[in-house]
Amino acid sequence: MKDITGGVCAPKGFKAGGIWCGIKANSKKRDLALIYSEKACTAAAMFTTNKVQAACIKVSQEHIAGGKLRAIIANSGNANACTGEAGLQAARRMAELAADEFAISGNEVAVASTGVIGVPLPIAAIESSIEALANSLSGDEAGHSAALDAIMTTDIRKKEISVEVMVGNVPVRIGAMCKGSGMVHPNMATMLCFITCDAHISSDALDKSLRKAVELSFHRMTIDGDTSTNDCVIIMASGNAENKEITSGTMDHDFFTRVLTEICVRLSREIARDGEGATKLITVSVGGAADDNTACVFAKSVASSSLVKAAIFGADANWGRVLCALGYAGPDFNPSTTKVDFRSSAGTINVCSRGGSVPFSEDAAKNILSQNEIEIVIDLGAGSPDYLGGQATVWGCDLSYDYVKINGNYRS
Amino acid sequence: MKDITGGVCAPKGFKAGGIWCGIKANSKKRDLALIYSEKACTAAAMFTTNKVQAACIKVSQEHIAGGKLRAIIANSGNANACTGEAGLQAARRMAELAADEFAISGNEVAVASTGVIGVPLPIAAIESSIEALANSLSGDEAGHSAALDAIMTTDIRKKEISVEVMVGNVPVRIGAMCKGSGMVHPNMATMLCFITCDAHISSDALDKSLRKAVELSFHRMTIDGDTSTNDCVIIMASGNAENKEITSGTMDHDFFTRVLTEICVRLSREIARDGEGATKLITVSVGGAADDNTACVFAKSVASSSLVKAAIFGADANWGRVLCALGYAGPDFNPSTTKVDFRSSAGTINVCSRGGSVPFSEDAAKNILSQNEIEIVIDLGAGSPDYLGGQATVWGCDLSYDYVKINGNYRS
Repeated sequence: MKDITGGVCAPKGFKAGGIWCGIKANSKKRDLALIYSEKACTAAAMFTTNKVQAACIKVSQEHIAGGKLRAIIANSGNANACTGEAGLQAARRMAELAADEFAISGNEVAVASTGVIGVPLPIAAIESSIEALANSLSGDEAGHSAALDAIMTTDIRKKEISVEVMVGNVPVRIGAMCKGSGMVHPNMATMLCFITCDAHISSDALDKSLRKAVELSFHRMTIDGDTSTNDCVIIMASGNAENKEITSGTMDHDFFTRVLTEICVRLSREIARDGEGATKLITVSVGGAADDNTACVFAKSVASSSLVKAAIFGADANWGRVLCALGYAGPDFNPSTTKVDFRSSAGTINVCSRGGSVPFSEDAAKNILSQNEIEIVIDLGAGSPDYLGGQATVWGCDLSYDYVKINGNYRS
Repeated sequence: MKDITGGVCAPKGFKAGGIWCGIKANSKKRDLALIYSEKACTAAAMFTTNKVQAACIKVSQEHIAGGKLRAIIANSGNANACTGEAGLQAARRMAELAADEFAISGNEVAVASTGVIGVPLPIAAIESSIEALANSLSGDEAGHSAALDAIMTTDIRKKEISVEVMVGNVPVRIGAMCKGSGMVHPNMATMLCFITCDAHISSDALDKSLRKAVELSFHRMTIDGDTSTNDCVIIMASGNAENKEITSGTMDHDFFTRVLTEICVRLSREIARDGEGATKLITVSVGGAADDNTACVFAKSVASSSLVKAAIFGADANWGRVLCALGYAGPDFNPSTTKVDFRSSAGTINVCSRGGSVPFSEDAAKNILSQNEIEIVIDLGAGSPDYLGGQATVWGCDLSYDYVKINGNYRS
């Protein structure tokens, strides 16, 4: 797997663009993005599990059900959620507007929105700018960079990636962009992720790969425990690479899934690192659990704990809060076999063994916890020489003053 | 129900005291408390549901199982949690030390601790100060005030209450003190609550009253989603009021339960208001749900949402976050029948109706949300003329910069 440039435009046959159309009324920051494929693409998607779903989610679900996509149109500055029938009409209109520019069907366009909830989407702003948006499309840096810009809200870092891998003897490219920094919790909160690839892959195989990749990445990331109304991950595969079709259950399929998982994990880490107000990426690794799912429940509980997050922000080796978060996670475990280490580029320190304190240097711990990537390594001790136990890794971030600042006044 | 002075010393036959014994090594703040009854009391208690339980919890569970208590000894500055066999011995020793002062049995003494996890409890400090602690006992203001002082950690407000009610024609008194401001979540996190009363009540009736009262109060309060290793609520009834014994299922029992519930609700509100870094008490009332339990799940989800809490801190009428938190709570509901009001002493404003926006004055909303007690009133609309729907009320607080400040450096 080789990193390449190009983002979502790296795979053959894709263009992207982004403009400011006026949805973000108080700034001239880009707010409307388009990703377009010259060929009809096999497509798969996953959507928020929130019972309150934005209009764009409902419309994209209908369109993806057809299995083919040519484009994704997305806006920031307005979530088009809790906007009733008018919101649904606006989301459908967004798809049609994009479709009309390329003489394709509205059903071939997915729609995504992010921003404030409950405010009518100013569809007129999109209508009057759709031609400019189409004209902004480009297959080079200017294109994917502008599109990425246009889906960002409180994000600080740009989160995109593109890679090339060999499928058989044929080079296949995958590109991805995503946004998300607040309202992010297991099960994909205010997160948009658009993935393009030029692989030739069956619809069924693509869907399975995406589900597996998301399960091991975006579903294992938490920022503030809030799950949004608008999340979606959409992948489009153009087939332009002209590899032998990847079908379910083959070695090529396994390989493709692993590559896609790696891409999504890297994006998840970037989203967690860019959590609202975050100063540190926190990785929680749990081993020695009864099984992988149980390990994941424990890891999420620790990564979601406000007290653990605040302690890491303060570089305070307060391992008691880790034990406490394991204790209210739900599943049974044995505190007296539990071990906790803190790890970073400055080293590893064991702070808890057999569920109790061990002598450690506070200075060394402070130094380790003062780095910007912290790993909390937990061994529940339920493994045996034959079975190392269930394991899972979850990504999160610390809780800082700035999280409160950003979210105390988001609408204004 | 008449408010009276006296705290836990208000009921006949109780004394209390508190001193500094040196567990809080960096200050001279009181850290050791004692509540003592001249007569053996009927007792009941509820303990943390965290799988990691402090040594004092295990010891108090054993002692309460006997059904009779004479005293409660409690310390702050050290949780005696994750301290292994030595911690258990220290907790037992605490009970024995108190018992020896009054020539009673160690089994008649409950033990409670709060503070940092994983540090051995300095039992020698308690040993050398136990006589001074016993000598500090008093039935007046100095007594209960010093005891309350000695169980506080990051608490700012003193939380105590005492009332007198008539049972039959006999005045009965109930007094209570509690601590808790961080690590507080449904199911009683780092919260200690000690209740005394002079009612004559059967063990079974007392236990039932306590369970009901806690269910409707401390279990409906959330500060940061963390549930601690050390929570307990203990009630002691001396019988000194010489009322006709209150037994299960009688009208007197119902009345006693209602009084106890009211006391616990008032303390819960005080704990939420005193949440770490909190500037506002938030009450979330949900009506029109399928049933009361479902209403409670929705109310807890809203009260626990970091985004909702930060919005209230910023006096931002961001009702979309309320809808969003309802949406990920779990149970099904119909967004299109949902109504949200914000209410405070400055008035009530409807911000969402039928799941969508309604025009409202941002200035009026800002004014309402700038008060220090905010109510979020949610009607899910599942009620009918015959059935108003399930309802529940939950208490929480806003999320401020100071929560992060307090918890970024708690151990130091």
